[in-house]
Amino acid sequence: MSVTTAKGFRAAGVSAGLKASGNPDLALVVNDGPQFVASGVFTSNRVCAAPVVWSRRALEDHTLAAVVLNSGGANACTGEPGLADTATTAARVAQRLGVTPAEVAVGSTGLIGVRLPMDKLLGGVDRAVTELSEDGGAHAARAIMTTDTRPKTASFTGGGWSIGGMAKGAGMLAPALATMLVVITTDAVLSAEQADTALRAATAVSFDRLDSDGCMSTNDTVLLLSSGASGVQVDTKEFTAGLAEVCLNLGHQLLGDAEGSAHDITIAVQGAASEADALEVGRAIARSNLFKCAVFGKDPNWGRVLSAVGTTGAAFEPESLDVSFNGVMVFRHGGIGEDRSLVDLSGRECTVVVDLHAGTEQAVMWTNDLTYGYVKENAEYSS
Amino acid sequence: MSVTTAKGFRAAGVSAGLKASGNPDLALVVNDGPQFVASGVFTSNRVCAAPVVWSRRALEDHTLAAVVLNSGGANACTGEPGLADTATTAARVAQRLGVTPAEVAVGSTGLIGVRLPMDKLLGGVDRAVTELSEDGGAHAARAIMTTDTRPKTASFTGGGWSIGGMAKGAGMLAPALATMLVVITTDAVLSAEQADTALRAATAVSFDRLDSDGCMSTNDTVLLLSSGASGVQVDTKEFTAGLAEVCLNLGHQLLGDAEGSAHDITIAVQGAASEADALEVGRAIARSNLFKCAVFGKDPNWGRVLSAVGTTGAAFEPESLDVSFNGVMVFRHGGIGEDRSLVDLSGRECTVVVDLHAGTEQAVMWTNDLTYGYVKENAEYSS
Repeated sequence: MSVTTAKGFRAAGVSAGLKASGNPDLALVVNDGPQFVASGVFTSNRVCAAPVVWSRRALEDHTLAAVVLNSGGANACTGEPGLADTATTAARVAQRLGVTPAEVAVGSTGLIGVRLPMDKLLGGVDRAVTELSEDGGAHAARAIMTTDTRPKTASFTGGGWSIGGMAKGAGMLAPALATMLVVITTDAVLSAEQADTALRAATAVSFDRLDSDGCMSTNDTVLLLSSGASGVQVDTKEFTAGLAEVCLNLGHQLLGDAEGSAHDITIAVQGAASEADALEVGRAIARSNLFKCAVFGKDPNWGRVLSAVGTTGAAFEPESLDVSFNGVMVFRHGGIGEDRSLVDLSGRECTVVVDLHAGTEQAVMWTNDLTYGYVKENAEYSS
Repeated sequence: MSVTTAKGFRAAGVSAGLKASGNPDLALVVNDGPQFVASGVFTSNRVCAAPVVWSRRALEDHTLAAVVLNSGGANACTGEPGLADTATTAARVAQRLGVTPAEVAVGSTGLIGVRLPMDKLLGGVDRAVTELSEDGGAHAARAIMTTDTRPKTASFTGGGWSIGGMAKGAGMLAPALATMLVVITTDAVLSAEQADTALRAATAVSFDRLDSDGCMSTNDTVLLLSSGASGVQVDTKEFTAGLAEVCLNLGHQLLGDAEGSAHDITIAVQGAASEADALEVGRAIARSNLFKCAVFGKDPNWGRVLSAVGTTGAAFEPESLDVSFNGVMVFRHGGIGEDRSLVDLSGRECTVVVDLHAGTEQAVMWTNDLTYGYVKENAEYSS
C-alpha cells in the first residue's frame, strides 16, 4: 500500500540532513518501465516554487522516469538561484539513474525563501539511489513528511493492475506553505491522454474539494506515473474510478492528520441548479471562519452556515433552504427546524447537509474546524 | 461627537430588557427636520434579516424621520413572523412620533434565528420616545453595543454644518453575525441624490475596505439622515470628504475594539494596474488565515503574503514584487530583502505594503489578526 505497490516501481527515503531533527527528508521514486507515461497537476498559485516550474516543464512530453522529493525546504521565492538548484538536483538523479534530467520531476516542501543546502541534498540523492527497493514505498512516504504525525499511503487493486500512492501535507499540516505533495504510481498500461484525463478527473473530485484553510500553497504537486508493468490495458473510466478512490483516501488522511484540528467536516450541498453552484456554496461554508470556530465549539450554528450561503451567487430562495448537522435538520424550509441540542458534535466527524431546493445537482467539500491549535501552530511557525 | 452633534436630531438609549444583562439595548434616533433626506447601504448577503428588508423598502422614497435599533436579537432567519415584528416596531415608533411607519428604519443585532420579545421591545420604544434628547447621542451609541467594549462615535465639522455618527460591531466584535450597524446624521442641506452619492462613495473607501474576518453579516446597515437644520447647502465633493472621514474614524474604532484581536493590520497595495487589482490583492491578503496567524505571532511572514498575492488575477510579475512590514522591505524585486528580524510587530499596528510594480493605482484594506481570542469568542458564542 504505497508507491511501490504497483509493479515496475522502486523507492527510497533517506536522511540527507536538510532537517535539523535528522529525520528522513529525501524521497526518490523510480519507474523501471516498460512504460514511462506520466501526468501532473500543480498549484494554480502564480507565485510558485522552483520545483513546480521545473516539473511542469518536465511533463511537457508526458513522460517521467523518476521523482525526487525533499522536505526541509520549499525552494520557493528563491529566484534564479533556486531554479538552478532544482535543475542541479534533477541532473544528479538523472546521472545516477542513466536517464535525462527532463525525465525527472522534483517536489519540495518546507520553509519559503531559503536556499536548499545543495551539498547535503546531492549527497542524499546519491544515497537514495543506492537504497532504491521494491519495498521502499514506506520509507519514501516517511521522508516527505513535515509536520505530519504519520505517513499517508493508499492503494487500489483492479483486474490485474494496481495503483499506489503517498501524500504529505494540507493546510493545517504545513503551516505557512500548506504544501500538498502527492505521488501516485500504477502498473496499468495507459496512454498519455488516459493518464491526463484520469488524473484531472480524479483530482477534481478529491484534492480540489479539500479546503482545509483556504490558503493555496506555492508548491502543491500531484504526480501520476505509469510503468505499464502489469501489461493490462485499462478502461479509462474504470481506471479513473480507482484513481479517484486512491486520491480520496489520501485526501481524507490529510484532513484527519491536520494538526490543531478537532473535527473533519464534510459539507454536502444538494438540490443545486448546477454542480458549480453546489461547489460555490460548499466552498463558501468551508471558508467561513465563524462556522469553523462554531464546529470547534461543538455548536451546530446554522446561522453561520446561512450567512455563508447568502454570500454566493448560487440559485436558491432563502425561504426554501434546509440545513442539517449530523443528521438533525436544524433549519427547515427557511425556518427554525429541530432542536439544536439534538445535534451531537462530540466526535471528530461533522457532516453538514445544505439543500438548496433549486435543482438536482450536488457536490461535497471537506474542511477542518478552526481551533486554538491551528492558531498556535501558525503563529509560532516561521517561514 | 455623536448622532446628536448635527442640528435637528434627538436620540435616546434605554434598557428594554432584551439583554439578559439588563444593559441598554434599544436606541432611537429622530430627525426633527426641516429636511428628512436619507440614504442607506445594506449587507449584500442574500440571506438578510427582516430589519434589512424593511429598511431597504423604507428608503425607496429617500426619506426617514427616525431610526430604531435594538441589540439583543438580530431578527434574522425568522421568516414572515420576524418581518411582522419589524413592521410592528416601526409602526409603534411612527405612532408615538406622529409620522408614518415607512418613515422609520429599523436595525437589529444579536442572535440569529430567535424571535424578539415584542412586549419588552415595544415598552422600550415608548420609554425611548419620552427620553429623546439633543444630548442623547451617547446613550444611543451605548444601546447598540453587543460585545463591543466601548461605544463608537465620530463627528466632522464643515463650514456651518456638521456630521455625527455612531457604530457597533465588526467581524470579531459580533461573532456569529458580524453585524455592523452605523447611523450617521448631518444638518447639511442635501438632495436625495447628494446623500446617495456621498454615502456610496464614503462607504466604498471605508467600511467596504474593512475585512476583519471575511464573514458577511445578515444585518449590516449604514444609514445617513439629513435634517438640513444648518441651512447650509454643501458641495457634494466637500461633504463626501467629511462623510468619508467620519466613516473611516468609525471603521478604525471597530477594528481597534475587535475582541480577541491583538493587531490592527493595514494592507496598502501600490503600483497596481487598476484600483480593482489593488483591492483584489489587498482582500486576498486580508483573508489569509495563515498571514493573520503570523501577525498574531509577530512574524513578518512575507511568504504568506506572496502566497495570497499569487492567488489573485491582478497584473504583476512575481519577480518584480516588493513587500514591506512596518517600514522594513523584507522582500525586494522578487527576492529576499532586509533582515526580517528588523521588523517590530510588538505594537498593535501592523502595516504591510505590497508594490506590484504594474501601474500607478493603489488601495488600502484593513483587517485584524487571527488569535486564540478570536477562536475562543467564536467557539463559545452560540447563535
